[in-house]
Amino acid sequence: MVRAAVQTGPRTIEMREFPRPQTGADDGLLRVEANGICGSDVEIYRGHMGMNPHPFVPGHEPLGIIEELGERAAERWGVQVGDRVALEVIVPCRACDDCLTGRYQACRFRKYGHGVTGIDVAPSLWGGFAEYLYLSPNTVLHKIDKSLPVEIAAMYNPLGAGVRWAVDLGGVGLGTTLLVLGAGQRGLAAVIAAKAAGAGTVIVTGLESDAHKLAVARDLGADHTVVVDGEGGRDVVEVVREVTDGRGVDVALEVTPMAAGPITDAFNAVRHGGRVVLAGLKGGRDIPLNTDLIINRALTVKGAFGVDATANKKAIALLESGRFPLEKLHTHTFGLDEVGVAIETLAGERDDKTAIHVSVHPSAT
Amino acid sequence: MVRAAVQTGPRTIEMREFPRPQTGADDGLLRVEANGICGSDVEIYRGHMGMNPHPFVPGHEPLGIIEELGERAAERWGVQVGDRVALEVIVPCRACDDCLTGRYQACRFRKYGHGVTGIDVAPSLWGGFAEYLYLSPNTVLHKIDKSLPVEIAAMYNPLGAGVRWAVDLGGVGLGTTLLVLGAGQRGLAAVIAAKAAGAGTVIVTGLESDAHKLAVARDLGADHTVVVDGEGGRDVVEVVREVTDGRGVDVALEVTPMAAGPITDAFNAVRHGGRVVLAGLKGGRDIPLNTDLIINRALTVKGAFGVDATANKKAIALLESGRFPLEKLHTHTFGLDEVGVAIETLAGERDDKTAIHVSVHPSAT
Amino acid sequence: MVRAAVQTGPRTIEMREFPRPQTGADDGLLRVEANGICGSDVEIYRGHMGMNPHPFVPGHEPLGIIEELGERAAERWGVQVGDRVALEVIVPCRACDDCLTGRYQACRFRKYGHGVTGIDVAPSLWGGFAEYLYLSPNTVLHKIDKSLPVEIAAMYNPLGAGVRWAVDLGGVGLGTTLLVLGAGQRGLAAVIAAKAAGAGTVIVTGLESDAHKLAVARDLGADHTVVVDGEGGRDVVEVVREVTDGRGVDVALEVTPMAAGPITDAFNAVRHGGRVVLAGLKGGRDIPLNTDLIINRALTVKGAFGVDATANKKAIALLESGRFPLEKLHTHTFGLDEVGVAIETLAGERDDKTAIHVSVHPSAT
Amino acid sequence: MVRAAVQTGPRTIEMREFPRPQTGADDGLLRVEANGICGSDVEIYRGHMGMNPHPFVPGHEPLGIIEELGERAAERWGVQVGDRVALEVIVPCRACDDCLTGRYQACRFRKYGHGVTGIDVAPSLWGGFAEYLYLSPNTVLHKIDKSLPVEIAAMYNPLGAGVRWAVDLGGVGLGTTLLVLGAGQRGLAAVIAAKAAGAGTVIVTGLESDAHKLAVARDLGADHTVVVDGEGGRDVVEVVREVTDGRGVDVALEVTPMAAGPITDAFNAVRHGGRVVLAGLKGGRDIPLNTDLIINRALTVKGAFGVDATANKKAIALLESGRFPLEKLHTHTFGLDEVGVAIETLAGERDDKTAIHVSVHPSAT
Repeated sequence: MVRAAVQTGPRTIEMREFPRPQTGADDGLLRVEANGICGSDVEIYRGHMGMNPHPFVPGHEPLGIIEELGERAAERWGVQVGDRVALEVIVPCRACDDCLTGRYQACRFRKYGHGVTGIDVAPSLWGGFAEYLYLSPNTVLHKIDKSLPVEIAAMYNPLGAGVRWAVDLGGVGLGTTLLVLGAGQRGLAAVIAAKAAGAGTVIVTGLESDAHKLAVARDLGADHTVVVDGEGGRDVVEVVREVTDGRGVDVALEVTPMAAGPITDAFNAVRHGGRVVLAGLKGGRDIPLNTDLIINRALTVKGAFGVDATANKKAIALLESGRFPLEKLHTHTFGLDEVGVAIETLAGERDDKTAIHVSVHPSAT
Repeated sequence: MVRAAVQTGPRTIEMREFPRPQTGADDGLLRVEANGICGSDVEIYRGHMGMNPHPFVPGHEPLGIIEELGERAAERWGVQVGDRVALEVIVPCRACDDCLTGRYQACRFRKYGHGVTGIDVAPSLWGGFAEYLYLSPNTVLHKIDKSLPVEIAAMYNPLGAGVRWAVDLGGVGLGTTLLVLGAGQRGLAAVIAAKAAGAGTVIVTGLESDAHKLAVARDLGADHTVVVDGEGGRDVVEVVREVTDGRGVDVALEVTPMAAGPITDAFNAVRHGGRVVLAGLKGGRDIPLNTDLIINRALTVKGAFGVDATANKKAIALLESGRFPLEKLHTHTFGLDEVGVAIETLAGERDDKTAIHVSVHPSAT
Repeated sequence: MVRAAVQTGPRTIEMREFPRPQTGADDGLLRVEANGICGSDVEIYRGHMGMNPHPFVPGHEPLGIIEELGERAAERWGVQVGDRVALEVIVPCRACDDCLTGRYQACRFRKYGHGVTGIDVAPSLWGGFAEYLYLSPNTVLHKIDKSLPVEIAAMYNPLGAGVRWAVDLGGVGLGTTLLVLGAGQRGLAAVIAAKAAGAGTVIVTGLESDAHKLAVARDLGADHTVVVDGEGGRDVVEVVREVTDGRGVDVALEVTPMAAGPITDAFNAVRHGGRVVLAGLKGGRDIPLNTDLIINRALTVKGAFGVDATANKKAIALLESGRFPLEKLHTHTFGLDEVGVAIETLAGERDDKTAIHVSVHPSAT
Repeated sequence: MVRAAVQTGPRTIEMREFPRPQTGADDGLLRVEANGICGSDVEIYRGHMGMNPHPFVPGHEPLGIIEELGERAAERWGVQVGDRVALEVIVPCRACDDCLTGRYQACRFRKYGHGVTGIDVAPSLWGGFAEYLYLSPNTVLHKIDKSLPVEIAAMYNPLGAGVRWAVDLGGVGLGTTLLVLGAGQRGLAAVIAAKAAGAGTVIVTGLESDAHKLAVARDLGADHTVVVDGEGGRDVVEVVREVTDGRGVDVALEVTPMAAGPITDAFNAVRHGGRVVLAGLKGGRDIPLNTDLIINRALTVKGAFGVDATANKKAIALLESGRFPLEKLHTHTFGLDEVGVAIETLAGERDDKTAIHVSVHPSAT
């Protein structure tokens, strides 16, 4: 039997046992080492995402060791039993036009997803908050160095987001100036990705309560950090103008959860013709925006939807390079019985408000 | 002396006379044949744009014949006295980094602009609502076939907008599906540009009162037109889903003046990963927008700021090709004494509500 | 039993019979309607491509009707029994990183290919010169309108090449000027694709013996055709300079088989910063090239490797639109017993030198 | 009077004196601090470039302090007397369509160039091998930190080439693998630029006699260096396959002078769909190339023509960042009387074969 955390409703997670899945030539079984937690987990836990078919096994950033592997699966994925792999959320159909042309994240025919499929879909073990996870034939996975500490390897997903959002979507490269609005794990990962790609000046914003995160931002190479609330709070657009000789940054990345103001800040902080990447979900509510700014300032605004294989590959190579002190991002490790506590810790709902990167390690139970 | 229409305040235009400018080796003089009118003229006339230094000679789409030309200007521009040319609004510095790298529309050092510079700046005749216009050394101009009817040639600017907004910014090319929200001269010009570039299905929206514009849209090649108000009004997103087999269009171009709803329609009507081009100014007011749509649908939103040389060249080639029945767009010609009436006619403030393309011809006075 | 043409060695094709393949949930069977022939077929026939595992069933441009289809295959491909489909040569693994990111043409793990896999690989019927063809689970196919004449529908592959080579790789769009070196079926298809995408001036070269092909080029919209050999032969670079006001074309597409000179012509005929697409194979031999031209003229040279799904989709939409007189390209239809004659006819090895598009129709036997 | 080195014919340079130029509102005068030497200087010195109108003042990488500056020039360039600036070779017209759209390097109307204009064109002092250089109104210049050692600042041009060739044209960014064929100053500069932009594995080739250059390459971050001649010489394609797990590199940059073989090596060393940047001039001679490789491997080949403003800006920012030990590249400083010796030293024509970066400092005379 396999133990797994099952979410049965908003803020309700219970431990259950499932039969160990049978695997064949095309699929496999993953022994979960760790599963990172991000803002989406918080929203899912609170029941805000709407899309989850309760009950289900959450956890969409699984890292683990391949325990069983079919012959055709081994050949297709280029991995073998004992390899450490990182999984993507989306399990695409691999056959439609979108999949064929590299846009598998837009696949309209996908049926499963790690951490989002219900336990009614056999063999139930789709999410990462479990001892074992089923590797479906269409699962997307990436090999990752086994010698990395598990906490570091488990950061492939936020770092993949940093790469995709700042570099691939934002176009940050050699000399590009960047404003990151929000100093959570993904904002900090964006600093790493941007600096690794040769960014020029990088500015990061946060709240007074984010002082420890902004310190990490500076350790990672951020050139300026700005506290935007409280008594000494600064207007971020003003700071950007000062720092960029009145010109504005090339790119702004918005990763704050729920706040409306930073989007307008982003529009005003980039230069004429600049780019704004939106990644911070706002709970589906309407945000008042002066769209004339987008027109008159000739902006490009891009929505940051998930992480793809290209970004994950680059992120894993960055992890493996050891170039950045990623251990500074990891703050909390929990066991499988503590998934709810883990999520609430990341959400800042607990007394301990210091969380940056939090992960659940089944073997730590 | 040169007669010119001078705007001295909101909705106040009077005729004045100015001395004919002296020209030298680096500049020239244009005999204005026509000057088209667009939505910006309406906003400027109403005093909403804020940026205009009254009094000034409006008119930022000048078409004319070169009457005087300095030796160095002739060489630099590659034109001669007697040539017909179309002018761009922006008179860039041609020296800063933005100018050097082709982004002269972002030039922060420009001092003049056709139709936007005050009469206090010598030699006063900067706008197109005048018999003659001063060609400054940094003016950007494009040669255009003299054999075209003046009303057709005067459409270089809206057609340039159609090319830039749909094709260059929207990326419309062979097989691309396009939704154009708004059936004014620029929406119709976008239909022309898109079809010329090989677009697949093109859908155009309008109001009940736009019936004649939607008929022109169909004449120009639009595959579907949708009336969105009144009794038979349809939900545009629903129509797009029907027409695109549930998938959504690749690109949506929003060119309605002041309306908020079409932006959200655009977000919902494009496919996952699609592109939305915003060109319709909303008077600087805040529009409520669900930005999660941009993220979850992986959208790219681009602001359409003006027309550049690349788009103008393509538009002029299209005009000269005679491939499209552009005469169907031209509805009104006025003389120099009637600039206010001309603008009010385009704005639909007069009894005659049929205006699509309106131009002022100084020689028609 | 299924009849198929089997190539057993260079210039040796014989008719054989194979058991009708058994199909299951993941695969299917195609009743071949037609299979077009291109220059690669000639090279394969002559034994120059080297890569073919004799004996094998050639024919890599199969068009047909789905006769049998597994349940999962139907769902994955979005088609049903009775649909007409066009096939791609490459049968990718659909699992490796290249496949996942849309570069399935670079898939290093593919094992099969239509028209290139040996009969020793079950179920033998991989090529289009057969009554039936096996649809493997990873086959890439595209639905195509059944109401099109079979000769027209069979042109999906050359038209796909025209789209990919001129438009997707060459970047031909609104107003782009193009030189096509070579007036075979793919050169002519490039004219169609370029004009459909809004190209400006299009110039096509050919030999004296290509007079009928150049006439078709003009019918398809080519602005200039140039005969480059014989008494009245012109220097193509000189003609391009005349026609483009001394500037050169934006893009040149080289599709001549085996000739060396046209590559240098292409380098000289494009403007500074222009693009050259190479598609004409030269038998693997060394061509003397002044590479300093590539540097000093800031050229981009691209190799045109096959056709991908994006280009095939656009080509099929163009076919279905009926916008171009494609029937002018089709010159010869042969039966299944005449594959060798069909190939030799396209190659100009027979008395009849008029071939442009040639196809084999199994039912015409 | 101003002292300058004047080339009167192949390998013939003599010192002459010219009147100090008069400057006005639009131009200025530069006190030359240093002028770097590159492979083009060698070719020009030998009389192989053909384009130079003897006699002329060579030196096309001038670095200096602004000594005189007109009011309009100051405003246009955004600099003042006393600023240190780096100059570009090309003095474009700033008016034609190419200039307007950012392609000023293709300007067909330019008349002057630093280091390439004859002394018959007033005021004669166009090149950098002189005490003072004339700043024409259309000169392109970039401000650079005065606190940098002059030898380091003088490397703006090779580093600009490294940025443009590897990053801007080659597309090297986060995780990209790169092969640099040739270990001269520009090859080494490409290593710097690539590593600054986050490149993955970088491999550099050289000859046995380049041992000291390959050592510098490793100091700059190159992951592998390969000696390709002599007894222990390796086949570079073989090494690349080993190092990249059989896949090939993403990008190859060819910067060897005159050698033919490295181009074919580049074609074979990149992955399917990879990019090859050609920068090594071959004296205008024909190189035998198997162009089928370009087609079958779906390659993109780009010619690296000079350095533009975008690349120079990024290079100057890199210089100013102090991130790389650039001093390891500078090997020789000469005075104004030793221009011939300086060029011959870079060319390896002298006994001292150790030159990497060589510059002439007028004040060192």
